[in-house]
Amino acid sequence: MGVKTVKFRRSERLIDMTHFLLQHPCQIVPLTLFADRYEAAKSSVSEDVAIIKETFEQRGFGTLKTVAGAAGGVQYFPAISEEERDSFIQLLCGQLSQPDRLLPGGYLYMADIVGNPEIVKVVGKLFAAKFVNEKVDVVMTVATKGIPLAYATASELNVPVVIVRRDSKVTEGPTVSINYVSGSTKRIQTMALSKRSLQEGSNVLIVDDFMKAGGTINGMMSLLDEFKARVAGIGVLVEAEHSEERLVDHYHSIVKLSKVDIKERKIEVTKGTL
Amino acid sequence: MGVKTVKFRRSERLIDMTHFLLQHPCQIVPLTLFADRYEAAKSSVSEDVAIIKETFEQRGFGTLKTVAGAAGGVQYFPAISEEERDSFIQLLCGQLSQPDRLLPGGYLYMADIVGNPEIVKVVGKLFAAKFVNEKVDVVMTVATKGIPLAYATASELNVPVVIVRRDSKVTEGPTVSINYVSGSTKRIQTMALSKRSLQEGSNVLIVDDFMKAGGTINGMMSLLDEFKARVAGIGVLVEAEHSEERLVDHYHSIVKLSKVDIKERKIEVTKGTL
Repeated sequence: MGVKTVKFRRSERLIDMTHFLLQHPCQIVPLTLFADRYEAAKSSVSEDVAIIKETFEQRGFGTLKTVAGAAGGVQYFPAISEEERDSFIQLLCGQLSQPDRLLPGGYLYMADIVGNPEIVKVVGKLFAAKFVNEKVDVVMTVATKGIPLAYATASELNVPVVIVRRDSKVTEGPTVSINYVSGSTKRIQTMALSKRSLQEGSNVLIVDDFMKAGGTINGMMSLLDEFKARVAGIGVLVEAEHSEERLVDHYHSIVKLSKVDIKERKIEVTKGTL
Repeated sequence: MGVKTVKFRRSERLIDMTHFLLQHPCQIVPLTLFADRYEAAKSSVSEDVAIIKETFEQRGFGTLKTVAGAAGGVQYFPAISEEERDSFIQLLCGQLSQPDRLLPGGYLYMADIVGNPEIVKVVGKLFAAKFVNEKVDVVMTVATKGIPLAYATASELNVPVVIVRRDSKVTEGPTVSINYVSGSTKRIQTMALSKRSLQEGSNVLIVDDFMKAGGTINGMMSLLDEFKARVAGIGVLVEAEHSEERLVDHYHSIVKLSKVDIKERKIEVTKGTL
């Protein structure tokens, strides 16, 4: 206890490695790092990795890949088991269909949902697991409610988040701004992104909390054009039924607001496309 | 493999429990949950907990408390080792003192810092570890750049985040808004919080990315008065030197911007008060 050079037993190594890998998703961790950390032989560390891999995969919370070669090591990719996903989506549908969420104009109160870290963490995992095989350099969202979701996703993918704003602020430095038409209200709006926050040619995963006609997401896509960046994927937490043509095609939603009856105060929420 | 009812070996139990506890910080997890999960005796689970506790505490990444009684179980509290904290703060000081962060007016570009999940995760741990013994019901911040930090902190403390906005939006429902005077620019500004997002009498940890005179944080404190809520603590990532009297007394900062020389393009960043 307290002595740093003590040799670690296997049990301690497994606990520490599990913690380390969960803290560093999608990163290649050299086995020598663990060997040094525990003063253990590389073969013992390899055995540890095999045990962790088996448990992670059996429980459905991730996969471990071993990468050979000089720059090799072990890499943890987050996942979520089907049971957990299904029960989460069911729970979310239940919470979102509470009638007291209804606001004037048929809007839904969702601040508590995106403010709940337990929910946000799972949403981040769902998006990360969906897009982990795409090349994602950065996760993008627009202020305000998309930020926790984007952050949770980026955290699991180990990439930065960039935040598009409705206004431009002095603390952002030079910005690129575009005008776009909101799909539902047809109003012209502005969004801006700090020039230095996104490198040209980046592969961008767009994440947002809500999509109706898709105007805002379409706006983000126009902004990406200005940065010569590429859309790697689009993930939204709640997609709303929309009678007219949607401005965005390839997206994944976690749940779908299929019916809002303001008079009867009834909200119907079902599984999305994810 | 794939068979759900297989009995778990100790190594698998330790890996799964470590994952589970890290995913559920500050929550009391009944030992029976683990016993059922692994079809193991409660005594074996208790031994597992003891091993995990020892490793967590030895490596400095948290403590486990066992809570006796009918509602008892095991509770993981996040922490961070002194070495990790010190090397993180040193790294952050280095990054923040890069001269190309300087913007007109002596402002600092920090969007990349709050957009970096690895940095944000550690900041969240530092704040959580600092305030874990205070009674915190909710973490509050103001849009935009404080949000990732507040979310990371709330995630470690297992409490919700509430986001104060500069504007009020239809999707927030009824709001309470106040006017406040920005401490540095002396301008009158507005901030608003959705009425249903904060319960009366809550204990609130305020988190923000930057504090100069403290006007914004002071504004959040006035807003809390309106909700009859209590400040449980204040944490800021960067505190700037301020020649006049500060509007806020009891706060903790991770780093301190001690000198900004615009002409020489020199920024000095040192350890904060945390």
